[in-house]
Amino acid sequence: MLAAVESFAQRGYHATTTRDIAGAAGMSPAALYVHFPSKAALLFTISRSGHEQTLTLVESVACRDDNPREKMRKIVEDFVAWHARRHLVARVVQYEFQALPEKEYAVIADLRRRIEHRVRDVIAEGAEEGVFRVSDVRTAARAVLSLGVDVARWYTERTSKTPKSLGRDYAELVLRMLGATA
Amino acid sequence: MLAAVESFAQRGYHATTTRDIAGAAGMSPAALYVHFPSKAALLFTISRSGHEQTLTLVESVACRDDNPREKMRKIVEDFVAWHARRHLVARVVQYEFQALPEKEYAVIADLRRRIEHRVRDVIAEGAEEGVFRVSDVRTAARAVLSLGVDVARWYTERTSKTPKSLGRDYAELVLRMLGATA
Repeated sequence: MLAAVESFAQRGYHATTTRDIAGAAGMSPAALYVHFPSKAALLFTISRSGHEQTLTLVESVACRDDNPREKMRKIVEDFVAWHARRHLVARVVQYEFQALPEKEYAVIADLRRRIEHRVRDVIAEGAEEGVFRVSDVRTAARAVLSLGVDVARWYTERTSKTPKSLGRDYAELVLRMLGATA
Repeated sequence: MLAAVESFAQRGYHATTTRDIAGAAGMSPAALYVHFPSKAALLFTISRSGHEQTLTLVESVACRDDNPREKMRKIVEDFVAWHARRHLVARVVQYEFQALPEKEYAVIADLRRRIEHRVRDVIAEGAEEGVFRVSDVRTAARAVLSLGVDVARWYTERTSKTPKSLGRDYAELVLRMLGATA
């Protein structure tokens, strides 16, 4: 799986062959097939695991007994730090899932919808309580997730900010963006 | 070039052959070679043109005799609208340039630095004049550009918001993010 993540992240799903992955993992293609029947099965396993991790991270915060401001802060801190710390996996998770076959794609699309809806719910909750001021909850949620997702594109081991400190900075920016009151 | 943009955007640079591009353009590979000596030359032409367009867009606003708040509003409006309107080209421009050979890569990296510095300058100008409140100009500039770049990933023809209206919404979000005073 690690060999697949590296190949997909570097050259893209379509340009990677199962032979490349097997080679990078020090296996024969036949040995790889014992674990994964196809290249799509590998991409699906990676995508599902990554999306489930980010959904868990968002849900575990969203369900807390805390105010929307603190929930949003923690969601952004964790979501951003995850995309920085695991930027190779995150790149595959965010940029390659559209190559999946229809059935597998539907599973991932559903996980993505759940992540987006959780974020919208926290924003809507904050807007109702007067903690946030937003004119369009969908656009605001999109922007919040966009900031996190895009971290996977530019973050490298050479970035001076740690994932944790980047998460904290972005959380401050997001709270302002949502017009959060102190 | 259009055929190359579509192929690169859909399957990635590495998975596209010059034969694919020639076929999509209704040409023989030999006829394509008359215009572009290699696949890398095609990617370079597309990348340079896209980066020059976004740099021009940012520079033409940054050099105006206007206050930092209005400059930033216009930069975000134009940058976001460009990434929405031209999302296929933008996807190639933002996600594929790392596949370029060293010399060509250096040209694009320089254009990217100039875009980033222009945005930083406007933020720094605003912070100095007390129009913006930012703790870290580099991180703030990164976030502003991230919001625009990521539009290329998710925007499609089916998105209900027009590029222009998305640009306006994002400009509002960015101004808040920078702690802009009215």
